[in-house]
Amino acid sequence: MTFHEFIKGDEGWVIQRRDSLFVHQYLEVDQVHLSSPTRPELFQWTVCHRKAGVVVAAQTPEGGFVLVRQERVPVRATLWEFPAGQIDQSGVHEWQTIVDTGLRELEEEAGYAAGPLAEVVSMHHFLSSPGFTDEHCYQLWVKGAVPAAGGMHLDPNEAIIEVRVFSWNELQQMVLSGEIRDANSLCCIARLGAILSAPRGG
Amino acid sequence: MTFHEFIKGDEGWVIQRRDSLFVHQYLEVDQVHLSSPTRPELFQWTVCHRKAGVVVAAQTPEGGFVLVRQERVPVRATLWEFPAGQIDQSGVHEWQTIVDTGLRELEEEAGYAAGPLAEVVSMHHFLSSPGFTDEHCYQLWVKGAVPAAGGMHLDPNEAIIEVRVFSWNELQQMVLSGEIRDANSLCCIARLGAILSAPRGG
Repeated sequence: MTFHEFIKGDEGWVIQRRDSLFVHQYLEVDQVHLSSPTRPELFQWTVCHRKAGVVVAAQTPEGGFVLVRQERVPVRATLWEFPAGQIDQSGVHEWQTIVDTGLRELEEEAGYAAGPLAEVVSMHHFLSSPGFTDEHCYQLWVKGAVPAAGGMHLDPNEAIIEVRVFSWNELQQMVLSGEIRDANSLCCIARLGAILSAPRGG
Repeated sequence: MTFHEFIKGDEGWVIQRRDSLFVHQYLEVDQVHLSSPTRPELFQWTVCHRKAGVVVAAQTPEGGFVLVRQERVPVRATLWEFPAGQIDQSGVHEWQTIVDTGLRELEEEAGYAAGPLAEVVSMHHFLSSPGFTDEHCYQLWVKGAVPAAGGMHLDPNEAIIEVRVFSWNELQQMVLSGEIRDANSLCCIARLGAILSAPRGG
């Protein structure tokens, strides 16, 4: 299992040795011996590998955003979040794999699908904690999301207890109050904020 | 080492057993047997514990934001980010501990300090990947940051190669282009965006 081939443009980084410290279904930990562009002497770092994810900012034709309220075990809290999930395949991810994963999660978790006039726009990716893990999450903006014919299909491991459409102003209030507090959603809101406030080209 | 006492308001969550799978200086992995508010039957989850962090959006009196450019080993990339670091103490964190950690990192990594008229404002915290880890990062907005008398004091483990002040519009361009792509910075920009666009009280 190699989660780390997503890295491109790593000129000047040389991995000399990689010792596996822990292997598990959901994460792997390596001790890496390497040199970097500004550190030619060999040094060590502990790296936690995780599968890549996809998070979806799905916007209805009326302009609202689809969020799910779900239980999150590590923090023992129930959070409002954009739908998201992991990419099963490791390695380099093609655009179509990212879109397929994002739309699958949108339908499974929220019961929404890309409508006939929908547009799926890349908002790049973000790194959840790049001092510690290579986990990265691709960010999609689905413009024109509509209720899916078949509704939700929840994974038995997930506890999603509510789905709701929020306006941009409501999202901003939830960011201000701290109610939205997962990186997936906040990073999408940062990208959307930059997109929505950018001057429109002619 | 218990990183998880930060959790408050966890009514309905009952941890029955916690088996340690991996213990390391920078992370611990547990297999937790628990029930949740909507899942009364015992189930299991793998939880990665990490120390809490503090990230600082430091704004100069002229309105620019202080960013550092640093090498990030797990993704083998050099990124522009807001200064950030971990809180050494585990457990529940008092406001003063969070502020002290944030200002320490601002000075060590960027060579900036809170000026005589500075104001330190809480922007809550975010969860870097709450399906997998309890890692959380407190977000501070330091208004009125000035160059520190003593300059930077870099940790030998860190490779920070540049410090620069960016305008809000420059940050928005770097969010749009994907150049800013760590959760620390994007989550701060999401909160700042909501704060700066909120209607001002009279």
